[in-house]
Amino acid sequence: MSQRLLVIGGDAAGMAAASHARRLEPYMEIVALERGTRTSYSACGVPYLVGGQVADPDDLVARTPEEFRDNQRIDVRIRHEAMSIDLDANKVEVRDHSRDRTFHLGFDLLHIATGASPVRPDLPGIDQPEFVYGVQTVDDGARLLDVANRRRCQRVVIVGGGYIGIEMAEAFTRWGADVVLIDGGDQLMATFDVDMAAKIQAAVVAQGVDVRLATQARGFENGAVQTDDGDIPADLVVLGLGVSPNSGLAEAAGIDLGARHAIVTDRRQRTATDGNVLDHVYSAGDCAQTFHRVSRRPIHIALGTVANKTGRVAGINIGGGYAASPGVVGTAISKLCGLEMSRTGLTEREAVTAGFDYEAVIIESTTTAGYLPEAESMTMKLLVERVTDRIIGAQIVGGTGAAKRIDALATVVTAKMTAADVVDLDWSYAPPYSGVWEVAQVAARKIADPGSGGR
Amino acid sequence: MSQRLLVIGGDAAGMAAASHARRLEPYMEIVALERGTRTSYSACGVPYLVGGQVADPDDLVARTPEEFRDNQRIDVRIRHEAMSIDLDANKVEVRDHSRDRTFHLGFDLLHIATGASPVRPDLPGIDQPEFVYGVQTVDDGARLLDVANRRRCQRVVIVGGGYIGIEMAEAFTRWGADVVLIDGGDQLMATFDVDMAAKIQAAVVAQGVDVRLATQARGFENGAVQTDDGDIPADLVVLGLGVSPNSGLAEAAGIDLGARHAIVTDRRQRTATDGNVLDHVYSAGDCAQTFHRVSRRPIHIALGTVANKTGRVAGINIGGGYAASPGVVGTAISKLCGLEMSRTGLTEREAVTAGFDYEAVIIESTTTAGYLPEAESMTMKLLVERVTDRIIGAQIVGGTGAAKRIDALATVVTAKMTAADVVDLDWSYAPPYSGVWEVAQVAARKIADPGSGGR
Repeated sequence: MSQRLLVIGGDAAGMAAASHARRLEPYMEIVALERGTRTSYSACGVPYLVGGQVADPDDLVARTPEEFRDNQRIDVRIRHEAMSIDLDANKVEVRDHSRDRTFHLGFDLLHIATGASPVRPDLPGIDQPEFVYGVQTVDDGARLLDVANRRRCQRVVIVGGGYIGIEMAEAFTRWGADVVLIDGGDQLMATFDVDMAAKIQAAVVAQGVDVRLATQARGFENGAVQTDDGDIPADLVVLGLGVSPNSGLAEAAGIDLGARHAIVTDRRQRTATDGNVLDHVYSAGDCAQTFHRVSRRPIHIALGTVANKTGRVAGINIGGGYAASPGVVGTAISKLCGLEMSRTGLTEREAVTAGFDYEAVIIESTTTAGYLPEAESMTMKLLVERVTDRIIGAQIVGGTGAAKRIDALATVVTAKMTAADVVDLDWSYAPPYSGVWEVAQVAARKIADPGSGGR
Repeated sequence: MSQRLLVIGGDAAGMAAASHARRLEPYMEIVALERGTRTSYSACGVPYLVGGQVADPDDLVARTPEEFRDNQRIDVRIRHEAMSIDLDANKVEVRDHSRDRTFHLGFDLLHIATGASPVRPDLPGIDQPEFVYGVQTVDDGARLLDVANRRRCQRVVIVGGGYIGIEMAEAFTRWGADVVLIDGGDQLMATFDVDMAAKIQAAVVAQGVDVRLATQARGFENGAVQTDDGDIPADLVVLGLGVSPNSGLAEAAGIDLGARHAIVTDRRQRTATDGNVLDHVYSAGDCAQTFHRVSRRPIHIALGTVANKTGRVAGINIGGGYAASPGVVGTAISKLCGLEMSRTGLTEREAVTAGFDYEAVIIESTTTAGYLPEAESMTMKLLVERVTDRIIGAQIVGGTGAAKRIDALATVVTAKMTAADVVDLDWSYAPPYSGVWEVAQVAARKIADPGSGGR
């Protein structure tokens, strides 16, 4: 008798697992439940939808439910929501929102890929669905755009200066709104160090966004955002306070949670109850915990790359193969307000928390040879562990072509290379791309060649 | 008594060595001889000078002789040419072209950084200095531009379809000339595989260059280039047949030569006679041989990156420190006719020669998420060693942002990572930069996840 795999969640981590399981197990029955209306959409593309560079929400869909059904025999059921998991009976209670009915579906193998949701702090007035918005799915973005258009929103307040907050601030600025961005901390982009974040802030301000730091939202009442510095009038409020894992369903079933209440998995993406591995229940993506290869600690990271990778690993194991997730090195990239930015490894704050003794090197350089007219400024920061000289982190902020350099550094961090190793790397050079010493090598030479100035 | 270091050649490999020696040895006397008029110029910037993006030849000079003298007490003598080296007496015969006199200069330590020169095949009529040009130094480029302007050259023939040939073809096209590019082989850019080179050729042709393959130059007489397919009229001929090391001076002194007659050095950049290391005679840069870390064979590579790296290693050792050159992985990058291109590791031809059993994977992708309007096409080719699944080579051709990805792959090749390792790498993703799986990971998944299509 063929087995049934039940997948909860029709985005990257769910459908990557379903696809890999199908590749390895041609006869397995695969059912995927998606509570929204779309599968495999690019949540990262939502700001471009709001900003108008992408015209149709369907452009963000990599594969439709019909394609999964017709090409891979994966039975995707949209507007179907898993309400509870019974691990004793191996069945899931399913709510079919289209037909307004509830039924039970048994499984031999279960894959939980329920994703994450925008953080909604418990503040007065936050539960006004036509006023305070979180943006996570394509549906959210499409709805937000529609609302802003319909209501002719002129005053938009963004709460939270992380990359989603800034992306939305930029999108609404382009769209023509007056945008105020508030953040309770002392810098934007807390995933960068404060010196690098200052450069990002300058670009956000130059875009026309009114940035107010150390400004905590206290409520969302009377058509305004309440703060300690007074009310900020708003037609629309967008939350950019990060996301938290949708782990309630798993938790209620007795599955172990870890960092930031994300679902704990082993390297093969198997979940556990009370520390005992559940051989037949997997989890991956934004709802699950992962592992940081530099800090050597569990971490929750909600990124499409991680969701696709961990979903793939889950699917290979579900399909009877063997795959293990090695974890992440903390790589992220954005393009905000015309500025490119990226990071990998640890920031200074993270390095301190993880107990590293390190040295930080910052190099101001250009994206091409300095003598070419198209040269734009680029700043590279490297964190080097003292004693070992190992590269444990990198951050880049700069013009066109700056940020994607982070992949080479993510590889360096993964391979545990030292500053001297980086100097020796045979990286490319031609005037349209860099100086003859690539900027990370200039930074590494500050460590490897003390007194040379790195040039 | 302080020692005297004599450096022959005032470009990257010479002056990097002089600078590092000075950093470590404050009291050493350092004299550098440069037969031209400039030090530390960017030879790679010459095509941009010809093309007009760079206005002044002096913009390509990183540091002037005066700066070396004033800031580092390095006695640079321009228009001074080393005529012979006497290793028994440890002295060099020097020709001072400014004062038209010859003298001898003793040394305790010698560094030979004589560079390379454009290959000039022994063909009828090639010795017409006002008709057939090689381009290597800033002086060459400035002179060529001057000649073309003064003589109002309309018809330019480029001989050789390597990157210098194509760069010069593009520069003269922009400048307004009718350009014919001939090459004796069956593809342009022999440093790429034929399938990737075909994409490059399409861009060169689109630029308005008349490309003629399998067309060997037989002579340069009567204002034309002679070929087996007839004469091609020309006002100006530019040679782009690659360069050969300027190793005659070293060879005459009894110093060992290796690949393509480049000067043999050990890992510390020390030369040898009859296989015996010369502790006090170093060499680096375009005149010296280096080592390919993938093929494990000696190789001659004339690139600014290698010159700076090997010059640095020589200087550290000269200054009493310890440094070793690990060799190269064959990385190169260009931007030609609006197309970005890069390579690392081995091409198919090189892999066959080096005895690798490999599999090649080609992926057609885009430089950004496919749904963004700015997405341009990008092709990635990976060579994977069979049995080990190790990545041994990569080639990229594509639009803006495509080529610099090669640095991540150069790091992968250096770290001897496998296809599965590449799939696991935590590379960056956001819609303006790539799809959620970086293109090299899509390629690697063709190997690691057979049947998945890599997506």
